[in-house]
Amino acid sequence: MRDGVRINYDRLARQLEELATVGGTADGSCCRIALTDSDRAGRDLVVSWMREAGMTVRIDPIGNIIAVRDGTRGGPPVMTGSHIDTVATGGRYDGAYGVLAGLEVMRTLNDAALQTERPLAVTVFTNEEGVRFAPDMMGSLVFSGQLSLEEALRSPSTDGAILGRELERIGYSGSGPCGSPRPCSFVELHVEQGPVLDGNRESLAIATSVPAISWQEITIRGAANHAGTTPLEFRHDAAYCAARIAVHARELSEASSALAATVGAITVVPGLINVIASDAQVMLDMRSSSDESLAAAIQRVSHLLQRLRVDEGVEIEARQLVRADAVRFDDAVVNAIRDSAGDLGHEKVRLMHSGAGHDAQMMARLCPTAMIFVPSVGGISHSPKEHTEPEHLELGANVLLHTMRRLAACTDPSNGPGLTSAP
Amino acid sequence: MRDGVRINYDRLARQLEELATVGGTADGSCCRIALTDSDRAGRDLVVSWMREAGMTVRIDPIGNIIAVRDGTRGGPPVMTGSHIDTVATGGRYDGAYGVLAGLEVMRTLNDAALQTERPLAVTVFTNEEGVRFAPDMMGSLVFSGQLSLEEALRSPSTDGAILGRELERIGYSGSGPCGSPRPCSFVELHVEQGPVLDGNRESLAIATSVPAISWQEITIRGAANHAGTTPLEFRHDAAYCAARIAVHARELSEASSALAATVGAITVVPGLINVIASDAQVMLDMRSSSDESLAAAIQRVSHLLQRLRVDEGVEIEARQLVRADAVRFDDAVVNAIRDSAGDLGHEKVRLMHSGAGHDAQMMARLCPTAMIFVPSVGGISHSPKEHTEPEHLELGANVLLHTMRRLAACTDPSNGPGLTSAP
Repeated sequence: MRDGVRINYDRLARQLEELATVGGTADGSCCRIALTDSDRAGRDLVVSWMREAGMTVRIDPIGNIIAVRDGTRGGPPVMTGSHIDTVATGGRYDGAYGVLAGLEVMRTLNDAALQTERPLAVTVFTNEEGVRFAPDMMGSLVFSGQLSLEEALRSPSTDGAILGRELERIGYSGSGPCGSPRPCSFVELHVEQGPVLDGNRESLAIATSVPAISWQEITIRGAANHAGTTPLEFRHDAAYCAARIAVHARELSEASSALAATVGAITVVPGLINVIASDAQVMLDMRSSSDESLAAAIQRVSHLLQRLRVDEGVEIEARQLVRADAVRFDDAVVNAIRDSAGDLGHEKVRLMHSGAGHDAQMMARLCPTAMIFVPSVGGISHSPKEHTEPEHLELGANVLLHTMRRLAACTDPSNGPGLTSAP
Repeated sequence: MRDGVRINYDRLARQLEELATVGGTADGSCCRIALTDSDRAGRDLVVSWMREAGMTVRIDPIGNIIAVRDGTRGGPPVMTGSHIDTVATGGRYDGAYGVLAGLEVMRTLNDAALQTERPLAVTVFTNEEGVRFAPDMMGSLVFSGQLSLEEALRSPSTDGAILGRELERIGYSGSGPCGSPRPCSFVELHVEQGPVLDGNRESLAIATSVPAISWQEITIRGAANHAGTTPLEFRHDAAYCAARIAVHARELSEASSALAATVGAITVVPGLINVIASDAQVMLDMRSSSDESLAAAIQRVSHLLQRLRVDEGVEIEARQLVRADAVRFDDAVVNAIRDSAGDLGHEKVRLMHSGAGHDAQMMARLCPTAMIFVPSVGGISHSPKEHTEPEHLELGANVLLHTMRRLAACTDPSNGPGLTSAP
């Protein structure tokens, strides 16, 4: 695949720009929250571009948009895709870049009059961000059979709306089965949303895994008391316990390179300078590339909580909000990406795990999957300051182009990951 | 003074009950915040009782109520007093007990037709709690010349009112000089607001000192980042720094029996489970019976902040909100209390420091001063659960009675603390 076919970056950049104006805010960020009018306007625009590119567009019952470009032999498509919904202060590339780069790949093939044996597909997954409706990554969860359509459609929003009705309202409640067409492989192109590539001045990475994750809400009940009159032995200090947990999270991270433990939220009640806190809540996010290391960390936190209960005389409840095992992406798809990057002159490409959640981790349950990352300047995302340099956006899209061609040209299961194994 | 004169506890209890209904809330607490209509109603009631007891009542320009009972020889009075303003969820005895027990002492002397050589005075100090107007202990600060009247009158409330205008509105903007009459000695009776007496099953204590105090507002500015994608070396975690400070406070307390360091408030922004906190604020209360030990603790905290600045790459600002030296109460007044307790059959009385702030610590600048404490059940105060057993309320008032008699009978400076030394 060392031919000279390349994507048209100017055309891709113009579409990224145009989509960014839908829900664009004064500070330069995008507010295109799932199933709002802005999301509808963004979807309408992307669907019109898909049709202009000659693709067959289908909406499934959870609102995923699936556009297919025929192959010469038919069968399961090689799929790419991401999302176009954003957080309230979203960047312009988070999600949208993966979708529009996929579309640019289709136009590039059209322009070069190139056909693939396998069909190709570009998918826009519903509600990846999970801002308005839980859970996040909903479209790919339903597509991959890990969440029932009925449950997803019942999801209430933070503003009182019901997901199913909002889908109908914006005209994206489709028909037919979910999870169709089942792809033979899936590749998602995304900005890193972390500082590793930018910090190391690298332009490309392949995500080979998604860490195991645990979210815990830890609630501490002590006793309010006067800070000036209460000796240590009479204290049941909920704020102190919360602080111990946050410091412990850092100690766990320092002790294991596989683990990242973060306390991002601490609330303390009553929150007065001269009153020992009666109540506190800590939100603990722990991720590890290894399921075993995450389980060990959860165990260590549990031991700390037990020590605090005894030593400080407080009640502590730990509620597990999220618990997911690590996902390992597919070696053959990783190799297809690596070979394609090599064809484009990028011989050494970092293999890394994806700290953030992506639709690809859901699709990995369904078919061989991997991800392509390009740098986020300063590691910043979910912010108007999100930025990726044009040459990196162009490179990522070209790697996607050649990876999809490579995967779609395979016509025989023994040749590699182009065909999914029998379900 | 081993005579049988005793206060009338039932009468005192009835007045405590009646005053508690002014601003009384459904949950059994008192909400009589300074210079509100409830405060006015409480003041009106107390003033009417002072007049019924035959006292001469004067309102000074900061709204302190000073009621005087004449002595046979005149001169500076022996003063007691406290406050009747409360926090929003105040107990019925915090402050009010000291004022009404003082008034009961006057009635007891009236009933027994006892005169003292020195005049006696009962004072209600304005805005001790500092809920609506800063600083707290305002009336005694102005009375003792440590805060200018002009500054106090300009104090804005949390609800937009100005203190001087609120004093006029409720009819308690008085005239004449502040700090008059200057007492020859001052004794404040108060509930402990801490667990020491109740925890040790003791019924009485003498406060011999008020600790040095430091209040700091520590503001940390880091950088928000994705909890899943940001390696340790790229983190500038404000929540982690806040937690380190709170844990350090506990370590300082454990290392020195003189010191109590408390973080009662932690706020974290944006406060999301999967976002490293960009900003945090910690409120640090430190108290010590020794000025040197407090200064050393402040220094240690400052060193920690500097380490965190360097190691975590964050900005930290520490704003000193309050800084006061320790106050040592007067040995002669302490002895007068101890002797009076002994006369009442309480030979062994605990000497302790007052962890909470009281008007007495301001009055100590003006004249020989000490405090009498009775137990707070469970150490609870500023709560509808505040409680003191009737026998302890009665005992405290009788100790106050005999202490004031003892101090007021002294007619010669060489005889003890009855006379203040020349200014």
